Amino acid sequence: MLPRITLLATGGTIASLETSEGLMPLTRADGILAFMPSLMERADISARDVFMLDSSNIQPEEWRQLAQAVKEHEASSNGIVITHGTDTMAYTASALSFMLLGLKIPVVLTGSQLPLRHPYSDAPGNLREAFAMAASARPGVYISFHHKVIHGTRAVKMRTLGFDAFDSINAPPLGRFDADGLHLRDEPAPEERELVNPLEIDARVFLLKMMPGTDPEIFSHIQKAGYRGLVLEAFGLGGLHYIRRNLIEKLHALSRAGIITLVTTQCLYEKADFTIYEVGRGFVENNIYGAHDMTTEAAVTKLMWALGDIKERRGLLTQCLSHEMFTGPE
Amino acid sequence: MLPRITLLATGGTIASLETSEGLMPLTRADGILAFMPSLMERADISARDVFMLDSSNIQPEEWRQLAQAVKEHEASSNGIVITHGTDTMAYTASALSFMLLGLKIPVVLTGSQLPLRHPYSDAPGNLREAFAMAASARPGVYISFHHKVIHGTRAVKMRTLGFDAFDSINAPPLGRFDADGLHLRDEPAPEERELVNPLEIDARVFLLKMMPGTDPEIFSHIQKAGYRGLVLEAFGLGGLHYIRRNLIEKLHALSRAGIITLVTTQCLYEKADFTIYEVGRGFVENNIYGAHDMTTEAAVTKLMWALGDIKERRGLLTQCLSHEMFTGPE
Repeated sequence: MLPRITLLATGGTIASLETSEGLMPLTRADGILAFMPSLMERADISARDVFMLDSSNIQPEEWRQLAQAVKEHEASSNGIVITHGTDTMAYTASALSFMLLGLKIPVVLTGSQLPLRHPYSDAPGNLREAFAMAASARPGVYISFHHKVIHGTRAVKMRTLGFDAFDSINAPPLGRFDADGLHLRDEPAPEERELVNPLEIDARVFLLKMMPGTDPEIFSHIQKAGYRGLVLEAFGLGGLHYIRRNLIEKLHALSRAGIITLVTTQCLYEKADFTIYEVGRGFVENNIYGAHDMTTEAAVTKLMWALGDIKERRGLLTQCLSHEMFTGPE
Repeated sequence: MLPRITLLATGGTIASLETSEGLMPLTRADGILAFMPSLMERADISARDVFMLDSSNIQPEEWRQLAQAVKEHEASSNGIVITHGTDTMAYTASALSFMLLGLKIPVVLTGSQLPLRHPYSDAPGNLREAFAMAASARPGVYISFHHKVIHGTRAVKMRTLGFDAFDSINAPPLGRFDADGLHLRDEPAPEERELVNPLEIDARVFLLKMMPGTDPEIFSHIQKAGYRGLVLEAFGLGGLHYIRRNLIEKLHALSRAGIITLVTTQCLYEKADFTIYEVGRGFVENNIYGAHDMTTEAAVTKLMWALGDIKERRGLLTQCLSHEMFTGPE
């Protein structure tokens, strides 16, 4: 019997057509299937349009809609493919990884760098591979793109034009496609979790990337403007300036005001660890957490998700929930 | 005759010693030379301490001090080596590239991931290679690190712990070291430029990295708080959300208020180009510029430098001044 796969379409370049205003997402889910009839040879596919957006416009409200749609089709599907623009696909994949903890089927995001109907498009290949991954029976949220399968919490969009748009950061890709098909690494099964209102998130997070000379006033603003969380892309292992412009003092003030900070690094690779240098030692305080080797995309979405029910989820900030952080012995 | 090289020390991990508070930069310039007497066999070295800081604390004020020190030693040196922490080395190198346009000698920044006195330190090798590059007679600002020479405007710190800490982004490294010594690519000589007050910069720049759901209120804040420039790390080729939270409208308001925005991408590789998608078309306006394939480090420092004399330098924002942007035919 063919696996039952649900295609959830959300727009993106893959669905775009050339217009006088530039590329616009206009192709619906059945338009995608009509263009790729070969997909139906390997799967029993049902298609649904969730929304039709350039992924720059996909925000936490859309994550919730999408998570809800996945929930609705989970019991009746062996796997789900989500077509999505590449711009924010890594954020969506990471957000869904947290919102859908305990998922029983594979949810596979894909898209393309050129529209499906472009003669050189990467969409047909990406769709074929995403459907193969969705039929793999490996529960979890993944990005499948250009012969790689990446955990939703480990993907980063690296290239604005190259077909190899996504990399798996601080962990090898979970899978690779070659002429012999899909090869998945072995992995321990995810822990079972029972969560209350897992779809509940709070988007009142500020993402601050440091630069030399960052004015401390922004920390006061974050406090006054009603944000509940801060993801701070610090320097190197977690450095911040404190001479002349004292950001460490400001960070402590945020902590005292109950705002939760996740300190990550602006270096793409390897972990943040603010306990090594004198400048970082002062951070070890109540509401300040190290993001370790999480990507910024994972840190932002995990913090939004944790803030959705901070009493229940605070303790999870320092645990690995969905491959987003390495917690084994070093 | 040996080349005359000036060593300017600024602190950093390379100069750090283990203390009860964590690593602290304590080794002075002559301490570095005393530890590495072999450097004196190949160069006539004079040493100077400019300041002694963890590079997380190096800010635009320090860039000016450092640029001034380079200016003072330019006429009497064949080359200059600057030892510097790795955390903000790429920002400093890029800032100096703009502030020192028209420089007649090589200025080479280096540092290390482990302190000079650590038994496994990468500092001795990095120092030897930086001194070799400083003796190369190739004018410009460079980072020399782990067998690579990178243009000051192309370097990004990629790894928090790995010895191969820096990559050259969107351009191959200018040079490589192997057992046969230093190999530099051929390059056209830089254009001659006469600039008024080239050291003048204005640090009132805000660096905003987008995330899905970024609240438009931050744009109003940037306008009210007295910033003169914004570097915006958009999605993909230059996407921003405009449904529900209309950032494009806010960006136009900044432009009308005279604040200059440089739109770059949060993708590490390849160019930003906001003219391709419908969501980006609205940007083409007075005070909004594309950063093309510049790194964020280059975009931030170039904008600060341009704001130092915006009447003279506005036109330079779209020109390649120091290898920071590719402007040839594609």
